[in-house]
Amino acid sequence: MTLSLHTPDLIQKKRDGGTHTRAELEALVLGFTNGHVPDYQVSAWLMAVFLKGMTLQETADLTLVMAGSGEQMNLGNLPRTVDKHSTGGVGDKTSLILTPMLAALGLTVAKMSGRGLAHTGGTIDKLESIPGWTAELSEAQFLKQAREVGLALVGQSKNLAPADGKLYALRDVTATVNSLPLIASSIMSKKLASGAHTIVLDVKVGAGAFMGTLGAGRELARAMVDIGTHAGRQIRAVLTDMDTPLGRMAGNSLEVLEALDTLRGHGPADLTELCVALAAEALSAHGEDPAQAEARARQTLVDGSALHKFREFVAAQGGDAGYVDNPASFDVAPGRAEITAPEAGYLQRIDALSVGRAVLVMGGGRERKGEAIDHGVGVELLKKPGDAVQAGEAVMRLYHRSGRGLERALELLRGGLGFGPAQPAAQPLILDRVN
Amino acid sequence: MTLSLHTPDLIQKKRDGGTHTRAELEALVLGFTNGHVPDYQVSAWLMAVFLKGMTLQETADLTLVMAGSGEQMNLGNLPRTVDKHSTGGVGDKTSLILTPMLAALGLTVAKMSGRGLAHTGGTIDKLESIPGWTAELSEAQFLKQAREVGLALVGQSKNLAPADGKLYALRDVTATVNSLPLIASSIMSKKLASGAHTIVLDVKVGAGAFMGTLGAGRELARAMVDIGTHAGRQIRAVLTDMDTPLGRMAGNSLEVLEALDTLRGHGPADLTELCVALAAEALSAHGEDPAQAEARARQTLVDGSALHKFREFVAAQGGDAGYVDNPASFDVAPGRAEITAPEAGYLQRIDALSVGRAVLVMGGGRERKGEAIDHGVGVELLKKPGDAVQAGEAVMRLYHRSGRGLERALELLRGGLGFGPAQPAAQPLILDRVN
Repeated sequence: MTLSLHTPDLIQKKRDGGTHTRAELEALVLGFTNGHVPDYQVSAWLMAVFLKGMTLQETADLTLVMAGSGEQMNLGNLPRTVDKHSTGGVGDKTSLILTPMLAALGLTVAKMSGRGLAHTGGTIDKLESIPGWTAELSEAQFLKQAREVGLALVGQSKNLAPADGKLYALRDVTATVNSLPLIASSIMSKKLASGAHTIVLDVKVGAGAFMGTLGAGRELARAMVDIGTHAGRQIRAVLTDMDTPLGRMAGNSLEVLEALDTLRGHGPADLTELCVALAAEALSAHGEDPAQAEARARQTLVDGSALHKFREFVAAQGGDAGYVDNPASFDVAPGRAEITAPEAGYLQRIDALSVGRAVLVMGGGRERKGEAIDHGVGVELLKKPGDAVQAGEAVMRLYHRSGRGLERALELLRGGLGFGPAQPAAQPLILDRVN
Repeated sequence: MTLSLHTPDLIQKKRDGGTHTRAELEALVLGFTNGHVPDYQVSAWLMAVFLKGMTLQETADLTLVMAGSGEQMNLGNLPRTVDKHSTGGVGDKTSLILTPMLAALGLTVAKMSGRGLAHTGGTIDKLESIPGWTAELSEAQFLKQAREVGLALVGQSKNLAPADGKLYALRDVTATVNSLPLIASSIMSKKLASGAHTIVLDVKVGAGAFMGTLGAGRELARAMVDIGTHAGRQIRAVLTDMDTPLGRMAGNSLEVLEALDTLRGHGPADLTELCVALAAEALSAHGEDPAQAEARARQTLVDGSALHKFREFVAAQGGDAGYVDNPASFDVAPGRAEITAPEAGYLQRIDALSVGRAVLVMGGGRERKGEAIDHGVGVELLKKPGDAVQAGEAVMRLYHRSGRGLERALELLRGGLGFGPAQPAAQPLILDRVN
């Protein structure tokens, strides 16, 4: 179809609160992707979208246009495919645990994943703590491994939803990131192009997350579920609390170690519960009884089947599987420092963002794409909000390399801690479900 | 002053309805003008301004920032300087009549003017109907002529408020033209940089104008008057009806001929009244009694003093002054066609835009900057709204060159005409005054 839609007219339509047709969105978004519509017109349009919104139908259409802007994985020959997405968080090693659980449960995970940027970690960075493990697989290797092991994980192709990548880069510098239809369509365009039949979404809510309130998180979850359903996929969303980092570890090697503990059935309660809940959602989306699904999911952490899948997966992608059974092999930075409680009482608050920033300044993350990172540094949360503390008792342990970034990390972490005399009310981890 | 304001933060501030400081507007607008802030950020900001507005203080600051972005004319050594601006219209030859009236009244007009684009004509194009007349004067010639004749008119310097030129080009392709603070600051930045003490504004209201309603016109007039007052100038605004073209002629030579008739005291009533009203505003801004000012202004059309000034002005800028007294010298295209009334009744409506487009398609205007134009083609309105017509009576005469664009022009003009059995209510030309 040849489109001769006049770009200023399309911008004006959204500026005046109008609703775009699919053809109009194609003209704008594909035109931008192939260089025919200049960035200065698209950014004006993005601001109009930010301030005037989009209907569900428009958001779904935008998602499909972006998903169709590049290559689309065909997973149609794989059985019971499932993908997972988290809206991002600190210390979120869920994928390391959940994906082998899903494979052990007979589902197929053929997943593309990203690297970390700024204060958020990336699953691929974490897995690279294991020597030899690589995210570079050919498409044929990727599909073969997914079929044989049930789990394969590669870096995200540059040609997956390229329209989203180009739009995101423009949103990032024009104050148009934090818009519900733009966030929802950005996430879902990549998930739809990745090809899985079932998609489980972990929508983080709280001070450290994109969505500050439960209401905003519910709206985002609703939009993403509706987009996916509209595209013929099975979508389940779980809303989870992100005021506090998940589990006790932040930093690449440290998070893999905590994931291995969890796969052995000895992980922190919050992390374990979240992984079980997400796995159960995936099973129920494939038609299993929800109560039974949860029991089956939990069993994989008890009977060693998820750990076994993880070992298989690491070996299949060139990693030294010996590391899986020898935690001492991991390179953990030798420097230690602790933060102690100033007085007796209760730990009230750990700001997730400050933990992420602390890992970053110690060298465990990157400010810019392509930077090398130190997998061994990190932060261990010895206490979590609600725990009683004595004056002078250690609440956090830092793993640093020769003091790099240590002073700044301590300052950041101290600034994110809150103490008080009263025990704070316990927060549920899973706040709501949308499907 | 070194500014290190982060552009996305400035965009976000306006997106969220915030109010910019002068320093923030300088960072954005001067940064854009000198190439440090890219167009894709400015266009997102422009859309945020369009949708969130600006306070009067912000609009005034934006105007001063743009006025200060290039050279600023110093007219401080000239007596009683006055400038005039019209928000644009079809058949608007007011400047041709008003400026010699003002000079004859002892004021000094040292004016920069534009060329026509699309359906609107430009004063310079009209004056170039007179052989030899040139808008190319050095600054020294310009100031000397203004002092000696009281009237000098040149093309607008490229370095006059260059920020406005760059912003306007971006607004034009991003659906952000029609914003009150952006229109007001754009007009006033050039007027302030042009240096006159008194500025008379003719704000056109109606179907063919930027401002469709009297309310919107009043808002624009108020904003421009306040900006100018804030900058220490005397500003007078007159709101005038633009549903119908002013006078009876549209087209370059034809409009000069009509202007000469008016300077001889034989012009159409609407055009004569508007010129008298605008001249009286200029005099009263310089302290003269309003009632006396109007009588004095009218007298210049009766006693030949305005026509004499026009003759002096034409000769000073190289034009053949003989044309002023010999209307038959003008090159008027020899082709003739007429549009007749389909039935007896009253002419209800002449769409100004359709008249402007008709002149354009016959070759009398330009679609793109720099195109040559045919000064001789045009449209004469034999009847105006409210006039009775007989079936078959001519209501418009077209002056065409060998039939160029004639069919399309006839079609446009017919589409803009309305006939009916009842006489429409007479519309006042001057709707309101703001100062």
